[in-house]
Amino acid sequence: MKYDVAIVGTGPAGLSAALNLKLHNKKVAWFGADGLSMKIQKAKKIANYPGVPMVSGRDLNQCFREQIKEAQIEILDKMVTSIVAGRNGYMIQAGEDIYYAKVVLLATGTVSSKVISGEEELLGKGVSYCATCDGFLYKDKTIAVFCENRKFENEVTYLAEIAKTVYLFTDYKDCKLNLPNVIQFDGKIGEIVGREKAVGVQLTDGFKIETDGVFIFRTTLAASTVVNGLKMEGPHIIVDRQMKTNKNGVYAAGDCTGMPYQIAKAVGEGNIAAHAIIKYLQIMS
Amino acid sequence: MKYDVAIVGTGPAGLSAALNLKLHNKKVAWFGADGLSMKIQKAKKIANYPGVPMVSGRDLNQCFREQIKEAQIEILDKMVTSIVAGRNGYMIQAGEDIYYAKVVLLATGTVSSKVISGEEELLGKGVSYCATCDGFLYKDKTIAVFCENRKFENEVTYLAEIAKTVYLFTDYKDCKLNLPNVIQFDGKIGEIVGREKAVGVQLTDGFKIETDGVFIFRTTLAASTVVNGLKMEGPHIIVDRQMKTNKNGVYAAGDCTGMPYQIAKAVGEGNIAAHAIIKYLQIMS
Repeated sequence: MKYDVAIVGTGPAGLSAALNLKLHNKKVAWFGADGLSMKIQKAKKIANYPGVPMVSGRDLNQCFREQIKEAQIEILDKMVTSIVAGRNGYMIQAGEDIYYAKVVLLATGTVSSKVISGEEELLGKGVSYCATCDGFLYKDKTIAVFCENRKFENEVTYLAEIAKTVYLFTDYKDCKLNLPNVIQFDGKIGEIVGREKAVGVQLTDGFKIETDGVFIFRTTLAASTVVNGLKMEGPHIIVDRQMKTNKNGVYAAGDCTGMPYQIAKAVGEGNIAAHAIIKYLQIMS
Repeated sequence: MKYDVAIVGTGPAGLSAALNLKLHNKKVAWFGADGLSMKIQKAKKIANYPGVPMVSGRDLNQCFREQIKEAQIEILDKMVTSIVAGRNGYMIQAGEDIYYAKVVLLATGTVSSKVISGEEELLGKGVSYCATCDGFLYKDKTIAVFCENRKFENEVTYLAEIAKTVYLFTDYKDCKLNLPNVIQFDGKIGEIVGREKAVGVQLTDGFKIETDGVFIFRTTLAASTVVNGLKMEGPHIIVDRQMKTNKNGVYAAGDCTGMPYQIAKAVGEGNIAAHAIIKYLQIMS
């Protein structure tokens, strides 16, 4: 599956870019939640988005959905877990599929939960974001799983079918999973332990658990863990006025590039990024 | 009349900034055409502004107008002709009034007509943008007037009452002015002639006219002529990611900062500028 552009994120920055790229007949793979931005969805009133006076987040997302439908743009409701540079672009791991795109636009928003200490260093070395991709490595082994959102419970179930024991940590209450080899913990993972390879997790209260691997399921992954070598300033991707990152062919827009965290800023940056990408594709071809 | 912020321009960048500054209880003087952006007004269909699917420019401007009314923001339909740094901010000449603001945001759009050769150099030295301010200097004298738009004809009439002779150049057809001392020309002003002071105009066909002064009436003035010492790159104001120009306390947003000339980009930059200005005002106070 080869594309001109892969957009990661279905918030306003991603939408703004998708609309423009579609108008310019670019082949776009647009990854993210079908429900669009949850942050917008939960906003009671938005008073400062030009053109849509005093709108609820729910209604604005509905406008967005109609616009997406009208423009005939498709959303791939898949989690992008890894983006790797290839010969003429990038290889994108999304769910269990691999996509190819000449250009990548990161519109991933702010990361709600923090990266766990050791997570970035040990990613691919016993730490994984993808049950389908890496689960088979842990047949009859012991793993720890951090599950941020109920919607990832099927991933945990899948892992429980493979592994001997699953130590489960959730960021929500009332996890309904009831499997004999899944042991739920109340505490929080403070650190993933290991040098060459993850060998266990240490909870914030100091308690240690030995494991063969660690799986992490989050709605939003930190861009720095998804794209290797991306220059960041704290939690934000560094971009220039054309929304270019330090990596050739990788652009970023919206909350992930820094404050203010605003819809207007996001749609503006998505628009600029799309136009810069159109130029970049012209030069490339 | 002292303000926190003076916004110049009533297009989407100015609107986006005005909405945010108003929400933050800043005292804003917002200058520009009551009719908002003419470029938007004339757009048949806008397909890529997130949240307002497939809208005509006329309808989008109507949305903007309702939002301005709802937010109780006032537009000062006056032409800003000069912005000069003062002790704690800027002095803004608009029509016949002077305003003071701690911060200036330029959201002036693209300049439709080009700056005339000699215009910037001789501004204030026989070249003026303001009949009310400088007209009295030309009592019984000879002046040339460039009038871009019919709506400035009252300025020409006013000048004709003072001056002996007015040589009039318009950018539109069928100028209805019929005054004994107003001589209308068909040609175009190619250059304003003079070293220390404007002494006449040379038409593009080479014909020269001696005058004591030159008045220019345009819907949009080039930012570089309004604010002295502003760093430009061609026709665009140079800004950083916070929309700051090279001049302390002067910000810019929208088309005037460069391509792409897009509504989404303009509202994004207006939003960023407003938030940067709010921070700047905090530090200032």
